[in-house]
Amino acid sequence: VEGIDMAIAGEDADEMWLRHSVMADRTKHQTFCVNVDATGEDAVSLRLRSEIVQWLGASLVSDPSRATVILRTLTDHDIAGRGLTFDGAAANEGWHIHIPTSGQPVIIESPSTRGLLYGFYAWLEGTPNAAEEKTVDVTSCPDQPIRMLDQWDQANGSVERGYAGESIFFGRWGSNVHSEFVSFPQRGEYDVFRGDVDRLVAYTRYCASIGLNAICLNNVNVRGYAIRFIQDPWLTRIAQIAHIFESFGLKVFLSVNFAAPRILSGLSTVDPCDPAVQQWWNEMVDHIYERIPGFGGFVVKADSEGEPGPYQYGRTHTDGANMFAHALAPHGGIVIWRAFVYNSHTDWRDRTAQADRARAAWENFHDLDGQFASNAILQVKFGPIDFQTSEPLNPLFFAMKHTNVIMEFEITAEYLGHQIDLNFPLPQWEHMASWPVEEGADAARALSRHALNPRLTGFAAVANVGMDWSWTGNPLAQANFFGYGLFCWNNHVPVSRVSLQWAQLTFPDCDDEHQHTIAHMLDQSNEIYAQYTAPLGVGFMVNRDGHYGPGPDDYEFSRWGTYHFADRDGIGVDRTQKTGTGYAGLYPEDQARQFEDPATTPDDVLLFFHHLPYSWQMKDGRTLLQRIYDDHFDGAARVDDVIRDWKSCASQIDERRREEVSRRLTAQQADAREWRDEICTFLYRFSGIADEHGRKISD
Amino acid sequence: VEGIDMAIAGEDADEMWLRHSVMADRTKHQTFCVNVDATGEDAVSLRLRSEIVQWLGASLVSDPSRATVILRTLTDHDIAGRGLTFDGAAANEGWHIHIPTSGQPVIIESPSTRGLLYGFYAWLEGTPNAAEEKTVDVTSCPDQPIRMLDQWDQANGSVERGYAGESIFFGRWGSNVHSEFVSFPQRGEYDVFRGDVDRLVAYTRYCASIGLNAICLNNVNVRGYAIRFIQDPWLTRIAQIAHIFESFGLKVFLSVNFAAPRILSGLSTVDPCDPAVQQWWNEMVDHIYERIPGFGGFVVKADSEGEPGPYQYGRTHTDGANMFAHALAPHGGIVIWRAFVYNSHTDWRDRTAQADRARAAWENFHDLDGQFASNAILQVKFGPIDFQTSEPLNPLFFAMKHTNVIMEFEITAEYLGHQIDLNFPLPQWEHMASWPVEEGADAARALSRHALNPRLTGFAAVANVGMDWSWTGNPLAQANFFGYGLFCWNNHVPVSRVSLQWAQLTFPDCDDEHQHTIAHMLDQSNEIYAQYTAPLGVGFMVNRDGHYGPGPDDYEFSRWGTYHFADRDGIGVDRTQKTGTGYAGLYPEDQARQFEDPATTPDDVLLFFHHLPYSWQMKDGRTLLQRIYDDHFDGAARVDDVIRDWKSCASQIDERRREEVSRRLTAQQADAREWRDEICTFLYRFSGIADEHGRKISD
Repeated sequence: VEGIDMAIAGEDADEMWLRHSVMADRTKHQTFCVNVDATGEDAVSLRLRSEIVQWLGASLVSDPSRATVILRTLTDHDIAGRGLTFDGAAANEGWHIHIPTSGQPVIIESPSTRGLLYGFYAWLEGTPNAAEEKTVDVTSCPDQPIRMLDQWDQANGSVERGYAGESIFFGRWGSNVHSEFVSFPQRGEYDVFRGDVDRLVAYTRYCASIGLNAICLNNVNVRGYAIRFIQDPWLTRIAQIAHIFESFGLKVFLSVNFAAPRILSGLSTVDPCDPAVQQWWNEMVDHIYERIPGFGGFVVKADSEGEPGPYQYGRTHTDGANMFAHALAPHGGIVIWRAFVYNSHTDWRDRTAQADRARAAWENFHDLDGQFASNAILQVKFGPIDFQTSEPLNPLFFAMKHTNVIMEFEITAEYLGHQIDLNFPLPQWEHMASWPVEEGADAARALSRHALNPRLTGFAAVANVGMDWSWTGNPLAQANFFGYGLFCWNNHVPVSRVSLQWAQLTFPDCDDEHQHTIAHMLDQSNEIYAQYTAPLGVGFMVNRDGHYGPGPDDYEFSRWGTYHFADRDGIGVDRTQKTGTGYAGLYPEDQARQFEDPATTPDDVLLFFHHLPYSWQMKDGRTLLQRIYDDHFDGAARVDDVIRDWKSCASQIDERRREEVSRRLTAQQADAREWRDEICTFLYRFSGIADEHGRKISD
Repeated sequence: VEGIDMAIAGEDADEMWLRHSVMADRTKHQTFCVNVDATGEDAVSLRLRSEIVQWLGASLVSDPSRATVILRTLTDHDIAGRGLTFDGAAANEGWHIHIPTSGQPVIIESPSTRGLLYGFYAWLEGTPNAAEEKTVDVTSCPDQPIRMLDQWDQANGSVERGYAGESIFFGRWGSNVHSEFVSFPQRGEYDVFRGDVDRLVAYTRYCASIGLNAICLNNVNVRGYAIRFIQDPWLTRIAQIAHIFESFGLKVFLSVNFAAPRILSGLSTVDPCDPAVQQWWNEMVDHIYERIPGFGGFVVKADSEGEPGPYQYGRTHTDGANMFAHALAPHGGIVIWRAFVYNSHTDWRDRTAQADRARAAWENFHDLDGQFASNAILQVKFGPIDFQTSEPLNPLFFAMKHTNVIMEFEITAEYLGHQIDLNFPLPQWEHMASWPVEEGADAARALSRHALNPRLTGFAAVANVGMDWSWTGNPLAQANFFGYGLFCWNNHVPVSRVSLQWAQLTFPDCDDEHQHTIAHMLDQSNEIYAQYTAPLGVGFMVNRDGHYGPGPDDYEFSRWGTYHFADRDGIGVDRTQKTGTGYAGLYPEDQARQFEDPATTPDDVLLFFHHLPYSWQMKDGRTLLQRIYDDHFDGAARVDDVIRDWKSCASQIDERRREEVSRRLTAQQADAREWRDEICTFLYRFSGIADEHGRKISD
């Protein structure tokens, strides 16, 4: 079919970090033994056995004395007796690995079958590193109990903000049209499922191999047939997918439409306090659990960007969330309620607090602290706007002291270059997770400290995969997915360790030097992208046609509340308490004081907090404008270096990946230069101030 | 079907200026006689008879002595003997009407059956006005021999730049989704024709009633099944449509894809100088004329905005056009070649002549003068850019001295408010047609003077109708269609006469005062819209998402060559010879001199020709910036007056039209205020100069 890149089921399974040939080679002389007497066999232990035998083709025996790798679950008694330490809210999912220097078997242990699976993949992936000549004994537990992926996949086969082809869950067999929003003819009349089981198994393996334990299958904007996923016969197909994920230890969630009772059953209201509505959801949830006993629960985007919600009925977000929580509680399910609520019809003329979108999540939710049910979770984007290159921590993370909270990230590169421009966001994510929140706790750690149920906090992130042969469009964007998993597990894992491990697993034929080169390309990519795009935390300057490339004024007169207020004198958003929107005052006193004064505000969020004259003197003595010019010239030039680095690896990379990455780097180079030129000219036309170094800026 | 406004075939026929009940009432006591002995019966005379008998239900007799209205064709001998004067290249299509004071029959005469039909409708529409107490004797001939509509209708049922619903030609029975670009399932596999014959007859009647004589059925961007319209079986359906139009005196044209020989028959080249390609078109044309003996010919957009063309083969536009002309000549057909050719990948950094889109048509075509075949026509947009609110005349109209030329207009309100904002463009069109071109000839008159064949010049315009009940979305936008026809016939027809005649025909139940009110609303609407949108001829400041509403910087860093270059000091495009792109020098010496100096450049194109400081002193003493501020506040305020005018007519207008227009005026009011505020703030942020009158401009 013209224009269609035919994709064969499962054939691309091997294109990420678990290369079957390498893993099979690594295990072909091993004999495994799995002993789960301490916990009993379950779907996960059966999957573990199947991974050994069916995926790897390795030997599995019952007698541990014949094994070279022993996997076994531990009782509390075992743990205490051995003096092992499994820490934190997710201690149950941790593992202990013992690698002897010689002769003796490798031992992988965990309190749970799920932990055993994680330990198994960790060992396969070379963690802990056993290259040194001594016995290794490592215990590792995840920092976050919930480590979740949000698929923004849609029933019509497209993926909102997807840059890697169609959905791997929905759409037509063999179809892979690259378009974010498209209409596909459907198989039969209602069958929206792709049915590519082999691919889903491979995907789930990747998820489990980096420690993820939850997934929401469909976009938070729930439209079309996706509204019906909670009903038969769609639910039957959802259950088939759920069973795959459950066997790899991932809980499955669905996004639901708040107005479903009206849309599906014609109820006259969807008021969350109306008994008929509550009853509708109770019965719906009961039915879901009949089909999927291990179902995770719901993700809900309500009263946001045009979606229906409790505000329409004069109710609060807790009224809405708790209705779902109540229905889910008898089954051990949870509701995840998104805090991404703001007025998406802002008047750009209004520069007061009320129009400051950065305040919105805080304004909508801080009063509700303590009122969410114990099986409800508030999902809060890391920053107050929307996954820009540079934002301060969302102040809601300070306000919610008696609420389960998930911190949300975006793996898919919506504002970060669409997986065309290289951008490994781990440095930014860790910066957010490490933001000091209170004595002895950064943002990541504070989550469980203030949770009503410490097991119901964690991270969630929008996934970045699709039907592309490389799964992620740009093969190097696989690292972002990989890195997200390791970051959930260890919120402070060294960035360069992650990038190097990914490069080693993904490019096993590269020598050590070039694996380091690839890791280095990744490590600096997030900073480079931030340099050549919107400056110093000022936010939206992105092209509004899909969010790729520059559009310096594209949102300046829009309804989305995302303005930079550039004029002939200066640029930036005044969010101080004294003269601005007061947003800075939402932080604890010490941070509020720091952000109130441009002299003490960190450079990366300087224009997020302040409207400053172009002549403003930065900490290093440069003017604000010169700093912006320098960043943009420097950022664009560094892309040339990245291209040179990639070329240096060329001879050791297979042609398909080499060329795919090269094409994208060339596009990134053009993108970076366009950003550089548009931003510099845009500000030059306002300021009339030339570059101090005499570089060409168009007038 | 949800979201679908079901439209019944032909039911909206009566919603424009020929209201059946009024016309039938006007003719019910008349007895008609049609005598075409001088020319012989043809499809048109049969249609005239059918209009009298079948459409109006009036009496038709053979004996002129029994008739109260006699329609008859004239021989040259009759004309000379009677001392009548039929002038110009289209003299044959003119009419003479004699209205006696009493008793005697009305006489409508013409050298042709087509002219008889025009005279018949003119008389029905009250032209000439017979209300006065004396004998009327009027002869009228069209100023332009070709008076054409270009439908931008697409095979999938959508209309490019259409703001009145789906195509009346293509799409599905009963469907009317409002969207400019959509994909429709097709009936059968290939049947893209709507088949709403009653509606097409009604449409054709409207066309003939205002003197139009040519139509191109499909969009100049020829895609999908439209490429196949020249082939069976699609051609059969095209022929059915053509026969309707021909019976009303309209020649039917098709837009063709230059690459059709490759796409349809797999030829390896479409080089216009390749004998195989020429042969392919010769045979294709022969076949079309077998099916449609009166076929008009082709419209071709080549080498423009991504369309294929002769440049790909190192050939010229005349090579391309003359290939088609040669194929069409044996059948009396013509090719209409669009001059809308420009580099649509302009670098915004380049402010030199080569990047000046205004120069493009001139650069591409002026050298080709005299080289086009005598049955080829060059179709040139009135201005050098693209139907903006204010442009100078395209300099090609000066350069083509030995070429058949059509001047192109756009009825559909692409840049003029999408038929939401009220905008009756006749004043702008007449300003363009009246542009002095040489001694004794304005632009309109010069066309035939420099034509190789004086009968092959004229006007063409993009149509503005669709499946909406009112045909044009906004019922008042019917006036634009009506006005276009009268303008083609009389290039200097008084604007207020047209608007009043339209109001009288369309609102027969309104009293005279309110018909004048409606006419007045129309008359000033073009000026009002120009006031509150992009200032003083500066061009593109329109929202790029479909061209409705403001987007002051939306095209500033785009590839389309449409820039305003606003900065902290000034705004506008320097197109002078001395310091700019030299475009002003493309005009004859006196005009070039006038445009070279901002002091002598007309205000409405001031920023088209000059980049001026905000402090520039206008002819009336105001600064440039103050003039822009004043225009925008004034324009927006005048919309309030228009709304008040419409309300004053409310009691005399039927509810459907009253409410439809009211809704659109309310939307226009919001649009005008948004334009005012965005443009004023945009320039205030650059200039830092407040409004002298202290009106509020957001910072």
